[in-house]
Formats: sequence, structure tokens, C-alpha cells
Amino acid sequence: MTDKELPAGWECPTASAVRAAARRIQDRVHRTPVLRCAALDDLFGGRIFFKCENFQRIGAFKARGAMNAVWSLSDEEARRGVATHSSGNHGAAVALAARSRGISSWVVIPEDAPQVKRISVAREGGTVVPCSPGLAAREAGLAEVVADTGAVVIHPYDDDRVIAGQGTAALELLADVPGLDAILAPIGGGGLISGTAIIARDQNPAPEVIACEPAGADDAARSVAAGERVELERPDTIADGLRATIGLRNFAIVSSLVDEVVTVTDSAIAEAMRLVWERLRIVVEPSAAVPVAVLQQGAYKVRGGAIGIILTGGNVDLDRLPWSESATR
Amino acid sequence: MTDKELPAGWECPTASAVRAAARRIQDRVHRTPVLRCAALDDLFGGRIFFKCENFQRIGAFKARGAMNAVWSLSDEEARRGVATHSSGNHGAAVALAARSRGISSWVVIPEDAPQVKRISVAREGGTVVPCSPGLAAREAGLAEVVADTGAVVIHPYDDDRVIAGQGTAALELLADVPGLDAILAPIGGGGLISGTAIIARDQNPAPEVIACEPAGADDAARSVAAGERVELERPDTIADGLRATIGLRNFAIVSSLVDEVVTVTDSAIAEAMRLVWERLRIVVEPSAAVPVAVLQQGAYKVRGGAIGIILTGGNVDLDRLPWSESATR
Repeated sequence: MTDKELPAGWECPTASAVRAAARRIQDRVHRTPVLRCAALDDLFGGRIFFKCENFQRIGAFKARGAMNAVWSLSDEEARRGVATHSSGNHGAAVALAARSRGISSWVVIPEDAPQVKRISVAREGGTVVPCSPGLAAREAGLAEVVADTGAVVIHPYDDDRVIAGQGTAALELLADVPGLDAILAPIGGGGLISGTAIIARDQNPAPEVIACEPAGADDAARSVAAGERVELERPDTIADGLRATIGLRNFAIVSSLVDEVVTVTDSAIAEAMRLVWERLRIVVEPSAAVPVAVLQQGAYKVRGGAIGIILTGGNVDLDRLPWSESATR
Repeated sequence: MTDKELPAGWECPTASAVRAAARRIQDRVHRTPVLRCAALDDLFGGRIFFKCENFQRIGAFKARGAMNAVWSLSDEEARRGVATHSSGNHGAAVALAARSRGISSWVVIPEDAPQVKRISVAREGGTVVPCSPGLAAREAGLAEVVADTGAVVIHPYDDDRVIAGQGTAALELLADVPGLDAILAPIGGGGLISGTAIIARDQNPAPEVIACEPAGADDAARSVAAGERVELERPDTIADGLRATIGLRNFAIVSSLVDEVVTVTDSAIAEAMRLVWERLRIVVEPSAAVPVAVLQQGAYKVRGGAIGIILTGGNVDLDRLPWSESATR
């Protein structure tokens, strides 16, 4: 489902599109809280505001983009249902959004994905379509679903409606905490950081936007450095939500609107995840801890500023925590 | 520091005392949020409101009682400083409260207590006084501190000021969610449940108050059944905050104001703790999960009602989670 090049005449979604998404989804997703912690303010030397998308429906910000995409469909499109492939939170998000509109959804999930992913899609009423591991099998499985059902494909990040939907998290954060100096968010395929950058650039003054990436899946950092999209052969990181390659639209937006892409190691991510659990006392998944690791490692200098961090999700296998012995590599 | 009998003429603290405590501590503790979760409402068959004292200062409701006790002291008493013995959250709470009043604190901690307990007392500016394990050594250590310093002892639960302070959690919960049918809270020494029952009985109509106790430390259930305080020789439960024996004042209050004492096993507590982590995506300690276990086991029937649960704390050793292999007994 990945295009080879941007559609002719494509234009970056605007802040108005993010605001329209916010109106479209406002009664269908949670307005998540913004938490603070004095101990973390002291540790990082600034005022840190945590936007808690781990408390979002399906436990991740992905509900926003999927909800905006599904509710942007015409009635005729919607009748066909929606489909995607996913080994992560996007599958459950699409199933949730489809159920909220009363339409069918199909989610192609590789057989080697954790059982919990199938359960969460099924819990939201989606049809799980198993496939062999690997991107080729996933795309073939999805093509088959589309051929059989006529379903509309909802791409997890390389989609204007999804990007606009993900931007609503930063829109809420900026409404709750005006005057942020910077917003840090993780980057995988780039849906969240794209929407975040679009809405941040619309502020006056605009906060810096920092994309935070695992060193073991640093395709975005490499892509920005190279001036063209770079695909990694084997991304390798505990941040399972951030293994995807940056999308076409996302690369265009990151290149023009994001101030910096910063990378951190898996051990730094695990340490930051533990810090969040211990000090904020909330459950976040490894991907969500990446921006916290960036602060903890000093890879971004806080310098007394007001910093927003989007904690992207809280879906984690409690039997395989990155600091437990069995998870040590 | 445990009395042998109630002081002559002792009277149960009133709802007015709880309200006075709330005014006294309101700028010194957090007003913690009340969370809900649709999946847990469905699972338990009612509307469940979680009062999140894991987000309280020092990560537990204990900050409330200690703060009220310390700020209830006369200036002359306060000048002497405060002291307690503790292997849990009360030590850090007393140190925090003392620091907020600018006075000294001493906390006697047995050498076999987890290192993290010493760290949390020291972080709040308290002086850690090590002692040998066992109640006798703890009480001897505390007596020595008092003899040396003249410090005022703050008992963790068998103290009217502490009881009134702990009652402020339920006072806030009832203000945020009027008309609760029941409030469930854990019982260890009985400070929290006493304050909760006092303020609940002041409502009209009064919600039921259910004390939730680990089966391996069921001294309160046995005491109520026997009509007199029963001490266990070796309480044995993963709920490390609930191993204390019910206090004199607490037994009197529980006997007259608490509707029921319900017990659950350690495996039910571990299962409920995991449920909270997975569904609410917050970090709670085993003691906090005890009322959730009571609902999950059907030991209290929800019957469509509105139920308040006090999640008492979030201080947990992330290296020793009760569902990890190394923690299995």
C-alpha cells in the first residue's frame, strides 16, 4: 500500500485541516490529560508537559488519525468498509473507527505478531485476516481483501486525513499549554510528527518541533541527511511502534517543517521508559519513551524552557518489559 | 509506638475534622484525578470511579495524613521535629510533611527494607535511622530517637490527625462523584478506611464502605469477627502496604462504621494489579489493587451501581512484579 511517489500536485495538509479533524473526531476520541511531575522538571531543568495519549481510546494516539480518516469518507466509500495491514496500534484504531461509523473493517495481521494485537482488533469488532510474515505478504493479503470486498485502504501514516487526525494531539496540547518552546514526539512512519509540525508552525511564536527516533530504526534521520527517503533493511529496536519507514508525504513534511531529527539508543529508551513508570506512575510503551530518552540523554537541551512531550501509547507486553532479565539481549 | 488501650474519653474524629484537614493540606498535596475506563465498567457491570492516589505526592495517599498531622502541631511541638518508624510510604510522607513545614524528621527503617524506601525518605530531606529487622528493634530505635531529639512521634494510622487527613481522599472523591453507592478501599492498619468511613457516613444517603484486605494479612476481618483486635504472627502477602495490624482507634471505627471487611488471595491481587496496568494504563502497587480484586472475584456485588475505589499508591519495585517468573513463589 506504499506509493512510489507523491501524487502530482500534492499539497501538505494545513492547520485548518487539523482543526477540521479536531471538530470531526471530538466526540469520538478522548481529550487526554496533560500531566506534570516536579521531580522530572528538576531532573530535566525545565517545565515538562506530558500529553498522555496512552490514555487515548485503544491506548494510543492512532485512534485520532483512523477516526478522522474513516469519518472523512463519503457515505458511498464508507459502505464498502475499510481495510489496512498492521502489526501494531493502527489496526485496532481502524477497527474502532469503523465500528463507530457502523461499517466493516478488515485488518491484515502477520502470523508472527503478538496475540494481543489480534485480540485488540477483534475486541473493536474488526475482522482479522492472517498472513505470512513480511511486508510483501502483508501487502498481498491486503490487496486480496480489497479485491474481495472493495474496502477503502487506510494507510497508517502516508495519508493526509491520518496526518491531520494525528495533529489533533498537539492542537489540544497547545490549547492547554500556550507558549511551549518545543514539542518532542516520536517518529516511525511520520504521521504524528507531520501533524504535530503542521499545527506547531501555525502558532506565533512557533514552538520547535523535534522528531525523536530510535537509533536502530533511524531511517528518518538518514533520509533527512541524505535529502531523499532511505529505507533500512532490518530496523532493530525495542520501540516496536517505530520500525516503519518514513512515508512519502511524511518525508516531505518532516524535511520542510521539523527542526531536527534526534536519535537515541535502545538502552536509553528502556531507561527512559522506566523513569516514566517510576516517576509519572503511568504505563507507556517503549515508543512513547523515545522523546523522554532524548531529554534524559541531553540530546536536546531544555535550557529552562517549557517542553511538550507526546506520550504516544501504553500498549505493552507486561511479560516482556525491557528491563526484565528475560528481555535482556 | 502502639498503645495498649484507647485513651480514656477518646472520641472518633468527626467529618468536620476531615473537612478541617482538607483545608489545612489543600495547597500541600495534590488533588488527584478520578479516572474511569469503559472496559472495566463493562467487566464489573457498573460505573467504577478510580481515585488515583498513586499520583499523589510521594506516590501514595500517606502524604495526606502525615501532612495533616505535621501541620496540626503547635509551633512549640513542631520545633522539636517529628519521628516515625516505617518500612513503607509513611516514612517518606512524614519527611515530606516535615520539609514543607521547615522542621526536622527522623525515620527509623529496618536494615532489610528495600533500598528504595531509604532513598525516598532521604529525597524528601528526612534523616534515615537504620535499625535491626523486627517490630521490637523498630520501636527501640524510635524510642532512642525520641529520647535524643525530643521529636514528636507521628503514628502511621493509630492517630486522629492521620485518620482525618486520610479521609480527605474520599472527601474529594465524593465531591467529584456525588451519589456513589459504595466506596472500596484497602485496609492495613486502618488509617485510610477509618477516614473514608467517617466522611462517607456524613453523606446522605451514605455510600456503603467496604474494607478490602489480603487473605494473608486478614487481621481486620478476624478482629471484626472476634469482636476484639486479633494480631497475626506472620502476615504473608504481596500487598506490602497492608501487613500492619489494625490500630486501636482504627478497630473502633471499623467496627462501628465499616459495612464489611472482604478478603482476597494474593493471586487475585496480582491479577487485579495487572488488570489495572493493562486497562487503566497506570502504575499501582499491589496494595492498591486489593479493592479491584474484590470486584474481579465477585466478593462484592456491583449490581449496576456507582462504585468508588481508592487506588492507594504506585510505589512498586519494577524488578519484582508479581506476574514475573522471578517473583513466582
